[in-house]
This record gives sequence, structure tokens and C-alpha cells, in this order.
Amino acid sequence: MDIAGELLAGSRLALSRAITAVENEYDEAVSIMQRLYSHTGKAHVIGITGPPGAGKSTLTDKLAKAYRQQGKTVGIVAVDPTSPFSGGAILGDRIRMNELTLDEGVFIRSMGTRGSLGGLSRKTAEVVRILDAFGKDVVFVETVGVGQSEVDVIKAADTTVVVLVPGQGDDIQAIKAGILEIGDIFAINKADRDGVDRLATELEMMLDLNQNEVDWRPPIERTVASQGSGIAELLTTIDGHICFLSQSGHLTRRRTDRTRNELLALIEEHIGRYVLQQLSSWGQLDTLVSRIEKREKDPYTTVSELLHMYLRY
Amino acid sequence: MDIAGELLAGSRLALSRAITAVENEYDEAVSIMQRLYSHTGKAHVIGITGPPGAGKSTLTDKLAKAYRQQGKTVGIVAVDPTSPFSGGAILGDRIRMNELTLDEGVFIRSMGTRGSLGGLSRKTAEVVRILDAFGKDVVFVETVGVGQSEVDVIKAADTTVVVLVPGQGDDIQAIKAGILEIGDIFAINKADRDGVDRLATELEMMLDLNQNEVDWRPPIERTVASQGSGIAELLTTIDGHICFLSQSGHLTRRRTDRTRNELLALIEEHIGRYVLQQLSSWGQLDTLVSRIEKREKDPYTTVSELLHMYLRY
Repeated sequence: MDIAGELLAGSRLALSRAITAVENEYDEAVSIMQRLYSHTGKAHVIGITGPPGAGKSTLTDKLAKAYRQQGKTVGIVAVDPTSPFSGGAILGDRIRMNELTLDEGVFIRSMGTRGSLGGLSRKTAEVVRILDAFGKDVVFVETVGVGQSEVDVIKAADTTVVVLVPGQGDDIQAIKAGILEIGDIFAINKADRDGVDRLATELEMMLDLNQNEVDWRPPIERTVASQGSGIAELLTTIDGHICFLSQSGHLTRRRTDRTRNELLALIEEHIGRYVLQQLSSWGQLDTLVSRIEKREKDPYTTVSELLHMYLRY
Repeated sequence: MDIAGELLAGSRLALSRAITAVENEYDEAVSIMQRLYSHTGKAHVIGITGPPGAGKSTLTDKLAKAYRQQGKTVGIVAVDPTSPFSGGAILGDRIRMNELTLDEGVFIRSMGTRGSLGGLSRKTAEVVRILDAFGKDVVFVETVGVGQSEVDVIKAADTTVVVLVPGQGDDIQAIKAGILEIGDIFAINKADRDGVDRLATELEMMLDLNQNEVDWRPPIERTVASQGSGIAELLTTIDGHICFLSQSGHLTRRRTDRTRNELLALIEEHIGRYVLQQLSSWGQLDTLVSRIEKREKDPYTTVSELLHMYLRY
């Protein structure tokens, strides 16, 4: 049986292999994704993001355990856009992962960039989709930081939880514009520390200014993930959000937007790659580069000439 | 006269306008870049990167002043991949910028992402090129952090200075793999603090393990930018690096690589954009998205069909 078939039959080994194929862009990746696509769209995808040291991994683990107790199966994709490594356990916190890794109902995978951001958000979306096709009820996408790359990665999620901690010096400063906009729910973790109330107040003020969606005001939950406190409440809020998304029609709209963006990204990537292959195989690329280098031609005119060569007008 | 002509004639206003056109992807941006291209390739482009709080802005300012004292003109492009703002002074430190902004020989510009990383490194490279065409002898590209987006942005530089500070807790931990590889020179700033020797030793050890280029061992300089100490030495090291690049032939090689990568990025962007325009103008995109949504089709097969439709085989 092929990888996709075995995966759909429940093989964890096939699941691992499919993810590796997507990560490394093996030839078979496309046919795997083609096979799996019709089996997707069922998982609830939860994004967990926030500044380093906010306790995202611990929080994800506790949420995962809580979902397991409800009998749901869980996938976790931990993405580090600053790391060139992937596959193994790259995130420091992930190494500390304990009982979860022994639970057959949980599948954890770390992803890095392999030296280039290109395709990281697309690949993350595909790994999420693989876990979805495998039958995971809940899939977490966890990032290491709050940069633009993380914002792009987290777009694969239905519900995004932004995790903050009090007393990080420049609290709200650290909450860059992009991160506020993507937060459906805010978790103030390590809420036993000083400064929780101040952070919550500042956050409320920023949310007042930032009313994108009129019908969902992002709730602020307080947690101490390491002690498990506030986890049940946070989980209820997350489930409430997916319920709101479904009933309001937002879920369909969000997923349509996502489908559109993914399609556009795929088009750019594939068509660009095709033209490059053509150029390289004819040795044309080096000639063009050298003429540009000598300032005989500029790159902009070159590209517009290439357009005319390769595209049907 | 057109913007490009005025810019080449020395108008700072035209310079500002050209940069704005590139940032906002105005239609005239391409014709401006076409006109300017043959006037580029003369500036020494210096990348300044490192973790937040390392004092990059202060260091850049001091280096800029030192170059001004040598009679050289300076451009500074401050890039914040985590900020959606651009144009004005977005970087906190940049606001503090003082005498430099009054100096006609210095041009400073901040850039953000406008909500998407797409094109940020390409745009940065183009802004650098505009400053180059304007006649700036030295152009600094300064980033706010050390994520992969910053690594991509800094690729526009001939010489990259990685700025570190002692006592940031997880010193070397913070120096992610990518950042070590792009450092031609390391500056340990705030070198009057404790932990300088330890950081320098750790850095040397990592450089021992990481011998990419056999003929240039990245030197480690110690600076206290706020007091101006170590700046002259750092500047000498930077000038030494560009001299090494020219004489060894590395400069040509680096710039050829850069030209190739820029061309490839432009191809992807333009061809992708063309196909999207076609799809959207025919209303085809929505139909495709909706069929994918319903799982009647998968995005991978869809893209491969589009390739056949739009490309001359």
C-alpha cells in the first residue's frame, strides 16, 4: 500500500513518513497530499503563539492532556522559524515532553526552516492537513516567537491563542501590532506573578482600540500552566470560539480565505519553479545574471521579457 | 523631469519618493528601478543585525558618524520585519536619532512589512539600490532582531556585522544557527559589562566549529557604542573586510549570487502575479476555491492544471 493509503488506515509510521516527505519536498509529497486532501477539514486547528518564555509549550501540553481526557486525539506541530533544524525535537521545551509522547493518541512534530523561510507556512499548513486526514480531532500549531514568520505560520489555525506573561519588562511593547490582530483568545500565563492586573488592563485597552471583529471580543484568560490552573477554563473558551465560528459562518469564511491564500502561494511557487527549471536547463540563467551584473540589462526588464517568453498571452 | 532623473541629479525629495514608490509597489516603481539600475553597484553595503537590546541603532549611528568624518556619504535602512509600519521612524531608537538627521550627507529610512513578509527582502534590496544610485558611499541595513526574516533581509549586505551583548542570560543560545553563518564580523557591544570574556570565548568556540569560509575568520570586536569606544577599530575591521572581498574575488561572487537570487525572486513574484490577475479577472479564482473547499478537487492538481493552461510548453 502507498504512504497515503497506510496513513488513512491508521499507520503512525506512514504518518511520520508523509510529514517528512512534505518537509523535504520529496517528489511523492504532491501525490500524498492529493490523496489526502478529500479526507481533511475535520480537525479543530488551534494556534498557540506568544513571546519566548511565555510558557507556550507547557500550556500546549496541558491543553493537549485535557483534550485527551475528553477522549479526543491530538496532533502538535511545533514550528521554529529561526531554526534550520526539523524533524526531531528542536524546541528546548519539547525535549522535556513527558507522558504525552508515550500516549498513542498524541502525535508531536517539530519543524524548522532548513535555512529559508520560503514555504514554511505552506509546509506547516500541509503538516496540519496530514494530521487532520490521519483523524486527529485537535491539531495544535505552536510557534516559538512573535515575528512576522510566526504570524504567517499561525494562519493555518482556526482559533489562535496568544500567550503572554506579566513582568516581561516591556509587556505591551512586546505585543507587536500583528500579534494582537491574530489573537482570538489571550492567555496570561504565569498569572501567579506580579503585574497580571496591569497586563490585563493594558491588553483590554489595546483591544478597545483594535476592534476588527465586532461580534467576537477576544477573552482574556489567566493560567498557571505549570500547575495546571486555568487550563479547564481556557479549554472551555477555546471550544466556545470554535462554536462561535461555526454558528456565525465565520469558520467557512476563514477557511475559504485560507484556501484562496494557499492556492495563490502554490501557484507562485510552482510556476516560478517551472520557469527556473527551464532557464537553468538551457543555461540561460547564468547568461542573464551575467548581463545584469555588467549592467547591460536590468532585472526588471529581464523578468518582463521572460514573462512574454513563457506565458500564453 | 521624472523621479529617477531628479534623483540622479541629487534631489533628496526624489530619493524619498522613489523609496516610497518601491515600498508601496506603485506602478512607477518598476520604471524607476529600470532607470536607476545601471547607476548601482558602487556603494559598500553593511548589514547590522543582532538580538533586540544589543545597541544596534547606537552602533550604526556611531559608525555612520565616523564615515561622515572621512567625508563619505551614508544611507541607513532600518528594517523591522515585525512591524506593519514603514516610512516614518518606527524603531524606538531611531526616534532618538539626533545630529545625524540634520546632516545632509545622511539619509535614514525605516521599513516595515505592511502586514506581510512577502517581498520585504526584495524591497530592502531595492531601497539599498536606490541609495546606491543616489551616490551614497556606504549604506547600512539595520534589522531589529535575529529571526529568519532578518537573515533574509541582511542578504543585501556585502559585510554583515552581528552585534551581541554579554549577560543576555542565554547568550549563545540566542545566537541561532543562521546568525552565526551570516556574520563576517562580530561586535560585542556594551563591552563594559560583566561576561564579555565568556561571550567572546563561547563565540570563538562556535566559530571554530563553523568554518564555512576558510580564508576569512570573522574577527570579534569589543565596543561600547554609547561612549563611542571601539568604533574606530570596528570601522577599520569593516573596511578590511570589503578590501578582502574585493581582492579575493569574493565580492564578485557574492554579488553574482545576490543578482541570481534577486532575479529568481522577481520571476516568482511577477509570474505568480500575472497568473493571479488572469484568474481573478475571469472570476475563475472563486470557482476554483469553492471546488477545493468542497473537496471536489485538491489544490495540488488544480495548480498543475493551471500550469498547463498558462505556460508555453
